[in-house]
Amino acid sequence: MENFVFQNPTKIIFGKGTETQVGAETKKHADKVLLHYGSGSIKKSGLYDTVVKSLKEAGVEFVELAGVQPNPRLSLVHQGIELCRKEGIKFILAVGGGSVIDSAKAIAVGVPYEGDVWDFYIGKAQVKEALGVGVVLTIPAAGSESSPSSVITNEDGWYKRGLTTDHIFPRFAILNPEFTYTLPNYQTACGAADIMAHIMERYFTNTKDVELTDRLCEATMKTLINNVPKALVNPTDYAVRAEIMWTGTVAHNNLLGTGREEDWASHAIEHEISGIYDIAHGAGLAIVFPAWMQYVYKNDVARFAQFASRVWDVDYNFFNPEETALKGIQKLKEFFSSIGLPVSLREAGIDDSRLEEMADKCTGSDTYTVGSFVKLNKKAVYDILTLAK
Amino acid sequence: MENFVFQNPTKIIFGKGTETQVGAETKKHADKVLLHYGSGSIKKSGLYDTVVKSLKEAGVEFVELAGVQPNPRLSLVHQGIELCRKEGIKFILAVGGGSVIDSAKAIAVGVPYEGDVWDFYIGKAQVKEALGVGVVLTIPAAGSESSPSSVITNEDGWYKRGLTTDHIFPRFAILNPEFTYTLPNYQTACGAADIMAHIMERYFTNTKDVELTDRLCEATMKTLINNVPKALVNPTDYAVRAEIMWTGTVAHNNLLGTGREEDWASHAIEHEISGIYDIAHGAGLAIVFPAWMQYVYKNDVARFAQFASRVWDVDYNFFNPEETALKGIQKLKEFFSSIGLPVSLREAGIDDSRLEEMADKCTGSDTYTVGSFVKLNKKAVYDILTLAK
Repeated sequence: MENFVFQNPTKIIFGKGTETQVGAETKKHADKVLLHYGSGSIKKSGLYDTVVKSLKEAGVEFVELAGVQPNPRLSLVHQGIELCRKEGIKFILAVGGGSVIDSAKAIAVGVPYEGDVWDFYIGKAQVKEALGVGVVLTIPAAGSESSPSSVITNEDGWYKRGLTTDHIFPRFAILNPEFTYTLPNYQTACGAADIMAHIMERYFTNTKDVELTDRLCEATMKTLINNVPKALVNPTDYAVRAEIMWTGTVAHNNLLGTGREEDWASHAIEHEISGIYDIAHGAGLAIVFPAWMQYVYKNDVARFAQFASRVWDVDYNFFNPEETALKGIQKLKEFFSSIGLPVSLREAGIDDSRLEEMADKCTGSDTYTVGSFVKLNKKAVYDILTLAK
Repeated sequence: MENFVFQNPTKIIFGKGTETQVGAETKKHADKVLLHYGSGSIKKSGLYDTVVKSLKEAGVEFVELAGVQPNPRLSLVHQGIELCRKEGIKFILAVGGGSVIDSAKAIAVGVPYEGDVWDFYIGKAQVKEALGVGVVLTIPAAGSESSPSSVITNEDGWYKRGLTTDHIFPRFAILNPEFTYTLPNYQTACGAADIMAHIMERYFTNTKDVELTDRLCEATMKTLINNVPKALVNPTDYAVRAEIMWTGTVAHNNLLGTGREEDWASHAIEHEISGIYDIAHGAGLAIVFPAWMQYVYKNDVARFAQFASRVWDVDYNFFNPEETALKGIQKLKEFFSSIGLPVSLREAGIDDSRLEEMADKCTGSDTYTVGSFVKLNKKAVYDILTLAK
């Protein structure tokens, strides 16, 4: 086990009817906020009205900025920054999924910074302060509701880049699983792939002696795998939706990565796909992860066999662990297929004309690498994308 | 799953050599602190010198209060409160195990309170403010390093009572597994029983649809069970000590109880045993828990069968789940025995002369009950103590 620091200050308020607490909870942090959301699905579901009523009752003023898209855009972040500055706003309330939260976090770090907020996403500057962010979550997927991360897409070149800083842990996150009842099945599935990926990015590590976190990862993956198919059949099963929603937070609140080197190559590769083709992040991960596994599993057959056995209940072949390992990868691929996700670029309608461009953008040069379980250079990323064709 | 609020703000600093950060970490909170510790084992191990050096280098003044005993006493808490008031101290640094931390927390809530701090422990007053507490942990057991709880023994009548309030989450906790190398085996085992009990108090619930937290509990218990026997054989195995130490924190940081009703009857019963006989809390739990299980398992045979199957790898008997359930209880008892703990009152040198007194103190009256998995009145507690003879 490696040395680590773990702290996650986000206050989680979970369960039925909890959205009515948003006003009182926000009031603890600010009297005037930016109310940030997406395309308006929160108006259809009635959540918007509930939030507005709760804010008003608590005496919280708000200015609205709607229009966050999946793979949230830098241009809207710039608008949000200007708006907050003009209105003297010190707190952002994000109502929606990971894209809305990530956009809110970008605005939060951008407001007190003199330069372009994009500097933080390309490592040109370090975050020193940020506005507070609160969340009402509607999609279990990104884990952004209690993570220190944000991913933004710069339309100028379609670069998708991430930022991680303790300054952007949300102050609170309100999670009512009932608001996930109306998610289209495809979006539930994409969310599941994202959650699964967050765990697998931590699970596949070269760090030795990480039994507790291995087992916690496996527990979380098993719960997800058990519940997602049920949600697709019965979208209004509260128990099932609650398991998925809490799993999404636990997957990405940093606990499962304590003491272990994490990988994140698959996320980096996926960012190039959804950055260019604007497909759902979860769909991109369902394509990349099995290909990545096929490329790297020989680096630690025992770990992949453990994954197959403990997570997928594959019968362990004592005489041929590699067979067990490969069956686990196959099971993952079948699972993604079974919940309606693409598991190849072709299934997502993406041809092979820009594989090299993506490999190049991902690694930036022949010598720069991504990932840590196996360090991948441009050639390796290209090969993985080829396996994903 | 039930609605819940989850927030744990404690900063965990985990790993080799981390104790040298104590000065810098403390300095963020205070310039002058109470250095609180136990019988002096930290002087033998060299930890005391390291802490003092680190505090001095960081420019943190300190006043010392040593002498915390296992089952920490109210009288020393009173001394600590007086000392902090006299010296104008606003922060307490606890260096030791759960007893030292619990004593520090009691001092922390007592200093700003006009009445007797015991009021908080008997529900006569609510905590409104507290000094900050920081921790350097030397014994994985109580989980107090990142819990909102404290248990104190009042020598006047030998009452052992607990307090839970968000005001006493430690600000930081430094955990170096190397400082657990020198723990006597008996203390390692007692700590393991305490950790196991913290998980089981949450695991045995009547709340339905709690798959994720069930599995997280099982993952944590399995890790503990795998590692404790190894630590007894090879006390200086870092990997093993690290698993146990991190397990002890995860077991009691509230995550494993999210969305579920918890029980805590066994803790309440045990408090009467160690309150009167001054045995180690973990030893008391090893005696009480199997007896409690024997008394209550029929309330939910399926849950006990799941415990047996998933935690203890008992082969599930599809035609006789009760047999599986009973085997799980037997396995737990054998585990406690195998690591050197008493599993009956007699083995701890306690006769049956005061069972009724303990049952009476535990429930206070014929109508007051403890626990929630099965609500236990005075008669039920007496019967469990009789099973534990």
